[in-house]
Amino acid sequence: MLHVNENYARIKPTYLFAEISSRVAEHQKSGNAERIIRLGIGDVTEPLAPAVTAAMHKAVDDEAGRENFHGYGPEQGYQFLRDKIAEIDFAARGVDIKPNEILVSDGAKCDCGNIQELFSNDVKVAVTDPVYPVYVDTNVMAGRHDITLLRCGKENGFVPSPSSCDADIVYLCFPNNPTGAVATKAQLQEWVDWANAGKRLIIFDAAYEAFIRTDSIPHSIFECSGARTCAIEMRSYSKTAGFTGVRCGYTVVPSELCAYAADGTSVSLKAMWTRRQTTKFNGASYITQRGAEAIYSPEGMEQTKSTIDFYLENARLVREALASLGYEAFGGVDSPYVWVDVKGPSWDFFDRLLKEANVVTTPGAGFGAAGEGFIRISAFNSRENVLEAIDRISRVL
Amino acid sequence: MLHVNENYARIKPTYLFAEISSRVAEHQKSGNAERIIRLGIGDVTEPLAPAVTAAMHKAVDDEAGRENFHGYGPEQGYQFLRDKIAEIDFAARGVDIKPNEILVSDGAKCDCGNIQELFSNDVKVAVTDPVYPVYVDTNVMAGRHDITLLRCGKENGFVPSPSSCDADIVYLCFPNNPTGAVATKAQLQEWVDWANAGKRLIIFDAAYEAFIRTDSIPHSIFECSGARTCAIEMRSYSKTAGFTGVRCGYTVVPSELCAYAADGTSVSLKAMWTRRQTTKFNGASYITQRGAEAIYSPEGMEQTKSTIDFYLENARLVREALASLGYEAFGGVDSPYVWVDVKGPSWDFFDRLLKEANVVTTPGAGFGAAGEGFIRISAFNSRENVLEAIDRISRVL
Repeated sequence: MLHVNENYARIKPTYLFAEISSRVAEHQKSGNAERIIRLGIGDVTEPLAPAVTAAMHKAVDDEAGRENFHGYGPEQGYQFLRDKIAEIDFAARGVDIKPNEILVSDGAKCDCGNIQELFSNDVKVAVTDPVYPVYVDTNVMAGRHDITLLRCGKENGFVPSPSSCDADIVYLCFPNNPTGAVATKAQLQEWVDWANAGKRLIIFDAAYEAFIRTDSIPHSIFECSGARTCAIEMRSYSKTAGFTGVRCGYTVVPSELCAYAADGTSVSLKAMWTRRQTTKFNGASYITQRGAEAIYSPEGMEQTKSTIDFYLENARLVREALASLGYEAFGGVDSPYVWVDVKGPSWDFFDRLLKEANVVTTPGAGFGAAGEGFIRISAFNSRENVLEAIDRISRVL
Repeated sequence: MLHVNENYARIKPTYLFAEISSRVAEHQKSGNAERIIRLGIGDVTEPLAPAVTAAMHKAVDDEAGRENFHGYGPEQGYQFLRDKIAEIDFAARGVDIKPNEILVSDGAKCDCGNIQELFSNDVKVAVTDPVYPVYVDTNVMAGRHDITLLRCGKENGFVPSPSSCDADIVYLCFPNNPTGAVATKAQLQEWVDWANAGKRLIIFDAAYEAFIRTDSIPHSIFECSGARTCAIEMRSYSKTAGFTGVRCGYTVVPSELCAYAADGTSVSLKAMWTRRQTTKFNGASYITQRGAEAIYSPEGMEQTKSTIDFYLENARLVREALASLGYEAFGGVDSPYVWVDVKGPSWDFFDRLLKEANVVTTPGAGFGAAGEGFIRISAFNSRENVLEAIDRISRVL
């Protein structure tokens, strides 16, 4: 008989953002809704950089003729893109990552979700609480139900310490989604030392790296000494360059990084991830990869930086407005997310802002128990909408 | 300790096409190579249809401004595309598939690889031999090592019968890769009846559906009566519309299709696949989906049909040339692949064509034991190259 994977029954049937959509839809049906301003899901609103769209037009033209037509590309990504990534995201910051240690994909969500396939079902997994749900759900779907939660609250500045963590794999995301917290180099180094000491792995999600403006904050786990033997890093162009609808990201797996067979033999994780990707994936779109390459042109870098500066200014406005209303607001400095202590249940506060201010946020409780009492406000919107949302919120609170 | 998924060690370390590439590279290094003509991997060579590139240019322009910017789309695909698929790929052929039973993805390879996640590790899987390796490798990677092989040879016209098959899941691909064989409606109906009788599932890969020209051959498993309760179908724009580098396909999961929990409870597979995709995938590129939509415009349909006709004429030329040289050649009628009985070991024949004719084919043995003694010749190339390849092969054989 056709038996299902019963682990699917152990994940919550609705995804956080589906619940939010349904509450928003219900509010709109109530007839009391003004124009809704969405500071919830964290989708970008600003257009792609002109350098990127120019490159994509050219790539579409390539696909329109026999001469420059590109069919199947390398599953690992085109060399032209991997070279740029190695040079500009890593070498330019003094980090030695080779192009062949970079595997391009159709987005960090896929990579974050798929990476757990490389490991035995008996590995112990730890995540932060609050957490981006994908790390948890994809492990539960694979049969790993006993996941350690590392509490992140005001008491530790939303950055957990490895001191009492006995997991084999930890997922860390900095700048953090949802809290907007960043980790210092010393804090990340502690995790790297912990991982190396116990043959453990850090899965480092650096999707929001481009928002870092504070000089001392590391952009990559590979800025820490020893990270090449204990870390995998994911990057995304979704927030960096507005690629949420275009779909591109990459994963870095250093050549010397290993995991272990039951008999103790070491196994290259780069070889395993390459095998996973070449077997189950067929590369990111050529047009997308040409667009991503253009992010690294001088104009592309200037244009994407300017869009991120714009979102960061939105974040500053939100953070300062909430603070002036008497709420403790975290994040929003090296991050597009402001994490607000709402002094009560987060879904109640969410409903209040939705119903009274017609502003959509994300309730912290949706990211885990330790998110209870907070909401996440995203800086992804036009200046006009952000100012209007601040104005409405100020009138309500 | 960080234990690996040891199932990865049970798949062959190199993928068929990697082995071919390495033999080609070695031949080129030998200094004896003329210009190589590739009739191997099955990648398309003709450009995208003008209707498609026009739609993609427009979509890039959408992404270049705030007004029509598209960020995160539905993970299941945009409604505009799902509606067209339901209407033109199904309703127009008398098949009732609803748009909400269609999940758009970045390609059939991903869907074929990921679908097995929905099932328990104890389900019994059957595949044809020869077979597209992805069905096997992805099951082995998940821990299903004991896979039943359904021999496809001249004796059964390369279409297996379900009579002695006791698997829970069977992967069927028609028009077939690699043999180019098609299944009649009666043959598929036998499989559907077998599946329904035993609460089994057919995973039907219809990636080459657009090559069918014989009226009586079904384009979809859902043309068979009862298929809605026992089948999932995958489609791809890779060969249909030259999207190998653009990446788009879709999977059809009927609403009433179920699998079973250990206690016998039925579970909707559409709900499970939706959960899988919303958790681990973030939708196909907006630009890609706009391109795919344009395939269904009157011009798009005419243009893509004309390209497929062109490849089919290539296939005819190859098939007839091989036949006139005294080789039994199969397929190549409703399929871009010609499957040739080479009267000896297929890797030897591959090497001979590579070294003496500088033509790359695919050795049948690479698709399974029953592929030994055959080679696959692909019709994906320019007319000039196909004629030149035929000429060279004729001089060698």
